[in-house]
Amino acid sequence: MSGAPRPGGRSAKVKAAVLGAALAELADAGYHALSLDGIARRAGVHKTTVYRRWGTREALLLDAIRERAETRVPIPDNGSLRADLLDLVRAAIANLRTPEVGALVRAAVALAPHDPVVAEAVAAFWTGRLGVDGAVVERAVARGEIGRTDPREVIEAVLGPPYFRVLVTGEAVTDAFLRRVVDRVVDGLPAPGRR
Amino acid sequence: MSGAPRPGGRSAKVKAAVLGAALAELADAGYHALSLDGIARRAGVHKTTVYRRWGTREALLLDAIRERAETRVPIPDNGSLRADLLDLVRAAIANLRTPEVGALVRAAVALAPHDPVVAEAVAAFWTGRLGVDGAVVERAVARGEIGRTDPREVIEAVLGPPYFRVLVTGEAVTDAFLRRVVDRVVDGLPAPGRR
Repeated sequence: MSGAPRPGGRSAKVKAAVLGAALAELADAGYHALSLDGIARRAGVHKTTVYRRWGTREALLLDAIRERAETRVPIPDNGSLRADLLDLVRAAIANLRTPEVGALVRAAVALAPHDPVVAEAVAAFWTGRLGVDGAVVERAVARGEIGRTDPREVIEAVLGPPYFRVLVTGEAVTDAFLRRVVDRVVDGLPAPGRR
Repeated sequence: MSGAPRPGGRSAKVKAAVLGAALAELADAGYHALSLDGIARRAGVHKTTVYRRWGTREALLLDAIRERAETRVPIPDNGSLRADLLDLVRAAIANLRTPEVGALVRAAVALAPHDPVVAEAVAAFWTGRLGVDGAVVERAVARGEIGRTDPREVIEAVLGPPYFRVLVTGEAVTDAFLRRVVDRVVDGLPAPGRR
């Protein structure tokens, strides 16, 4: 018993400190200057702790962004697909707009084509995350609110346009815009009777 | 008469050579190493020609990407919104996936938050381009195929999900995916009677 990490125990605190330090260090120093040594220093932990647990900065950043998304972008369950998608996209875009996540996503966009380790970490994150997000669509199908549809592609239809604005066109993402995006997507989904 | 530039004349040829060289140089050397001198050398024109005409690399790249989009992503007019949007998104994604445009867009994503000149060039490009693309939606409204809707936001709904895949998640963009994206967007548009 005594060897198992307790939630809120020393191990959890070290992990939280290192993951937070990784995102902060990325936002400050940039991806190229990012090192496990620098992250350990910022977190106030010994660097062997960081090397032993994560091994590479990509593995550490993947863990950091997963934890961050879990905390800041919870999966809603309002009993309404429209309300769930709106909560989800609002939280996802607020998270994307923080300096840490913004820096991470933009660095990944620039590096992924030239760096297979980055591309793999990005794919691992999104494969997991879109599956988790898709639960709001699966529940809407299960309760007969909409007909069968691909849950991931519904999430992509909702996240795609605001991500396009934030990252590509730079146009403002207002809450009214997010509501129109969600309305447009929900209006295009199959009705419950239709298979 | 003799002073006016003719299409296909020397001036047009110089322009085409410089714009092509700018995108090729960006793909090879990267944004940070990009210089008007290097572009002029690659295009085989005198550097004062390039400095006089464009002044900055951002102005030159903006011109290059505009010309490239005009050439490679023509505005279709099939008499069907579904067919037009599909042609448009296929061409836009094929263009995004070329090494030159991919390098330019990814560099802009990484740099825009820290570089107002880049952010302004990006905004200028997309403000123009989404307006031009929106013509396919305006025509569909005019011929009574759909009800009134925001043309730019329809284009963003179509471009957003595949851009999200290419730049962010790295997931494959198949032609079947593009067809589902277009179908989902068109299915969500207001019917012609509805105002």
